[in-house]
Amino acid sequence: MYSDLFFIKYNILNIININKIFINKVGIKNYYQPFIFDDNSGKLQRILGLWNIGNSVQTYKRGVHMSRFLYILNKILNKIISLKIIFKFYKFFNINYSNDFFLQLSFMYFIKKISPISLNFSLMNYKITLFLKKNNIFKNFLLKLTIPINTLCPCSKSISLYNAHNQRSYASIFILLKNNLKICELVYYIEKQASISLWSFLKRIDEKYFTEYSYNNPKFIEDLTRNIYNKFKKFKFFLKLENLESIHNHNVYSFCKNF
Amino acid sequence: MYSDLFFIKYNILNIININKIFINKVGIKNYYQPFIFDDNSGKLQRILGLWNIGNSVQTYKRGVHMSRFLYILNKILNKIISLKIIFKFYKFFNINYSNDFFLQLSFMYFIKKISPISLNFSLMNYKITLFLKKNNIFKNFLLKLTIPINTLCPCSKSISLYNAHNQRSYASIFILLKNNLKICELVYYIEKQASISLWSFLKRIDEKYFTEYSYNNPKFIEDLTRNIYNKFKKFKFFLKLENLESIHNHNVYSFCKNF
Amino acid sequence: MYSDLFFIKYNILNIININKIFINKVGIKNYYQPFIFDDNSGKLQRILGLWNIGNSVQTYKRGVHMSRFLYILNKILNKIISLKIIFKFYKFFNINYSNDFFLQLSFMYFIKKISPISLNFSLMNYKITLFLKKNNIFKNFLLKLTIPINTLCPCSKSISLYNAHNQRSYASIFILLKNNLKICELVYYIEKQASISLWSFLKRIDEKYFTEYSYNNPKFIEDLTRNIYNKFKKFKFFLKLENLESIHNHNVYSFCKNF
Amino acid sequence: MYSDLFFIKYNILNIININKIFINKVGIKNYYQPFIFDDNSGKLQRILGLWNIGNSVQTYKRGVHMSRFLYILNKILNKIISLKIIFKFYKFFNINYSNDFFLQLSFMYFIKKISPISLNFSLMNYKITLFLKKNNIFKNFLLKLTIPINTLCPCSKSISLYNAHNQRSYASIFILLKNNLKICELVYYIEKQASISLWSFLKRIDEKYFTEYSYNNPKFIEDLTRNIYNKFKKFKFFLKLENLESIHNHNVYSFCKNF
Repeated sequence: MYSDLFFIKYNILNIININKIFINKVGIKNYYQPFIFDDNSGKLQRILGLWNIGNSVQTYKRGVHMSRFLYILNKILNKIISLKIIFKFYKFFNINYSNDFFLQLSFMYFIKKISPISLNFSLMNYKITLFLKKNNIFKNFLLKLTIPINTLCPCSKSISLYNAHNQRSYASIFILLKNNLKICELVYYIEKQASISLWSFLKRIDEKYFTEYSYNNPKFIEDLTRNIYNKFKKFKFFLKLENLESIHNHNVYSFCKNF
Repeated sequence: MYSDLFFIKYNILNIININKIFINKVGIKNYYQPFIFDDNSGKLQRILGLWNIGNSVQTYKRGVHMSRFLYILNKILNKIISLKIIFKFYKFFNINYSNDFFLQLSFMYFIKKISPISLNFSLMNYKITLFLKKNNIFKNFLLKLTIPINTLCPCSKSISLYNAHNQRSYASIFILLKNNLKICELVYYIEKQASISLWSFLKRIDEKYFTEYSYNNPKFIEDLTRNIYNKFKKFKFFLKLENLESIHNHNVYSFCKNF
Repeated sequence: MYSDLFFIKYNILNIININKIFINKVGIKNYYQPFIFDDNSGKLQRILGLWNIGNSVQTYKRGVHMSRFLYILNKILNKIISLKIIFKFYKFFNINYSNDFFLQLSFMYFIKKISPISLNFSLMNYKITLFLKKNNIFKNFLLKLTIPINTLCPCSKSISLYNAHNQRSYASIFILLKNNLKICELVYYIEKQASISLWSFLKRIDEKYFTEYSYNNPKFIEDLTRNIYNKFKKFKFFLKLENLESIHNHNVYSFCKNF
Repeated sequence: MYSDLFFIKYNILNIININKIFINKVGIKNYYQPFIFDDNSGKLQRILGLWNIGNSVQTYKRGVHMSRFLYILNKILNKIISLKIIFKFYKFFNINYSNDFFLQLSFMYFIKKISPISLNFSLMNYKITLFLKKNNIFKNFLLKLTIPINTLCPCSKSISLYNAHNQRSYASIFILLKNNLKICELVYYIEKQASISLWSFLKRIDEKYFTEYSYNNPKFIEDLTRNIYNKFKKFKFFLKLENLESIHNHNVYSFCKNF
């Protein structure tokens, strides 16, 4: 009896609500929570994550349960997360708590780099963001990786008797997130295209190498964009580059895509 | 003779370059330059613009002429720009200097608002960004407008004996940029959907009105998203809302689109 | 012979340089490096630190050894650091590598908070900065701690028939850094002064408690400033508060000091 | 009768309140309002100002009138403000509405610069902040001016066969605000100390000049700090420099003061 009544009531609610607007995303944003990142290389990093998670809202619902997202986040507090495991989490939460879950996770990833001549190690930091949502622009999951590099201007080099202006630049690639993606390799391939890559700890002999190597390897932002494009052309991706120009107070940037 | 030789050389260059990658955008970013904004209401505002402009790079070209973009920007320094005139600029530069020009212009737009009871005026500021590029996501030009508002939580109201938590929120709409768009009206329609709109200058009697009006008009972020959606549903747009939650140290946000 | 010549040359250099300007600080800024934070409570947190370190430059020197700072930072990579140990590091580096060292370390510190009624735990994050330099404004070392809280407006409450506007606020205290400082206690004493403190995870019954408690505990920014001042008046400190006003698009702030 | 009672009540309130804490600053922050800037050179600039204004709170008062600050700001909306006039405003408001007023005004200031060889003009933007408060650190009023420049590393130059790493840097001077301060001259004297100053619009022949001039004029951050110090040593000031290092992903900075 009761359940029948309930059923009717429920139907009425549905009828009333059936013409509500579908909302693509509702959730929480800029929530800090640490986790342990397994980068598939056998080493673990304790990491400060910045999380956005949420859900779409169907036409028959008024809204999401905001507190449920904290419940979900609590479940993965201080857990080990690899690119493989993040899919499992996504699927698990999508089945159990949601049917159109999304998750965006940003963090600073570290690689120990050895300086080119003196062979001193230091940490380099790379910003990573993972985007997990069923129906994003690629109909799939994405990884964004931002890599700081050096670019030296070919025009400045060719027209000047000596020297060339050069600057710090940022190369960001958005690429399909796959289980077996090796972040170290992504970093390596992109750094290779720059005039030269950056290090945190450089002795004088390293700085000499840096300065001369960069001069022998000048790159316009267009050259660098195409070099990275060619390196990744068998993948779907988009690419953003930005130079902190040392001759101007404004930046120079490029955008290109392969999909 | 000379021209023939030139022609051959040119062809060779083309043949060499023909298989270069097409780059969607290359240009300059974060360049500050003032202009005069005509908002189609008969009043002019002197405005600090933040400009990104550039061009795509065709497969047969190595790159853009960066200095040309400054030449273009110099031409429109301190010029009067309305939504109508910005199209003309776009077309003019596209024909004369470029064949796939893009322009992005961000600025702070002011409206004098009269407080609800004491009738004191004050300035409210709204951030606007114009996006002009032939082949963007809508195949057309866009305006982004961000409006600060107040939202009061219906759940908090309904479960508490008195009071309800409320906060500052930001509603951003991305809409097709048209000649005859009235920004004041956009602001008006969106502010109307909020629990209540904001003012810079409120006397006590205004604050009383504000507090009570907001309480009588509670809105979840989902409600507000749908209310704005319904108001604009005959247009193509997307919508981003964000609440600076007064009960949490993280934000709540929504995203929805109609196209 | 040679060494004598060298000695003369060296003296000449010194004589030439003796009237150089003393520079208070030269160093590196915004270097990310993880460490393990011991908060004196027996629990350890793996933490992402943002480091500024450097040295003054004496009148007889041309400059600092930038690479030495990375050498120092490498030495404390992934080390356990407590408020006690950071002094030891400071002294060690001051004696061994420098005679006027400074160190500034910012990080996000987490506390597990239990929601007031449903007793669910969640993480709250608090930004901390440590300032170590011999001759700072207090002639001593400082800790800055920023705590997000809720403030409810007494004026809005008293003039309105129901409800009161309230918002997220940030209270920052700068206090003498001492070995035995308990950060948890600092957080506790400041949160106690707010209209109510924040939680990340609130169920409906918590939200009801939050809403009603805040209403019974209204605070102007001036009230809150004085309440915190009185709680800490036996210490030297300064205090900055900022309210993200829910009725305006601008903020309200206060500053006060006790030294 | 009534007024006597009121008088007694008022006195009681005073007695009750007399031991409240003195608060150095309470006010509004990040309020956008345009004004017209007269830089003492005969030319006017319409400018977007970001305003912080407020007052101290005496021991016998509960707080400030927040709405009064908007009343004050409304009075100077779109007014012409020079360094001379801002003192008048300060005094006027201090006498009429307040007895310990403070005002902080930030804006982007533009100078037309002619490129060194091709003689093309373009705008350069410099961030300025004015600080007006009776009892600040200098017991006087301050102007902060930030100037983007280029610095080329002397070490990189001297150890390398060719080229030297160089980058965009920011030099900020805090100096006593005086009626007759010429901002253009401040900019000129600081830009002169850099490896070379920046322009927004550079043709190839300018870029050649820039590249070679910078190489002939290498500066460590310590050199530049001292050069600027020596230029301004008859004034009280403090100085902050920051290099966006092109060889690292972190910055290098210096601080020095003369007072």
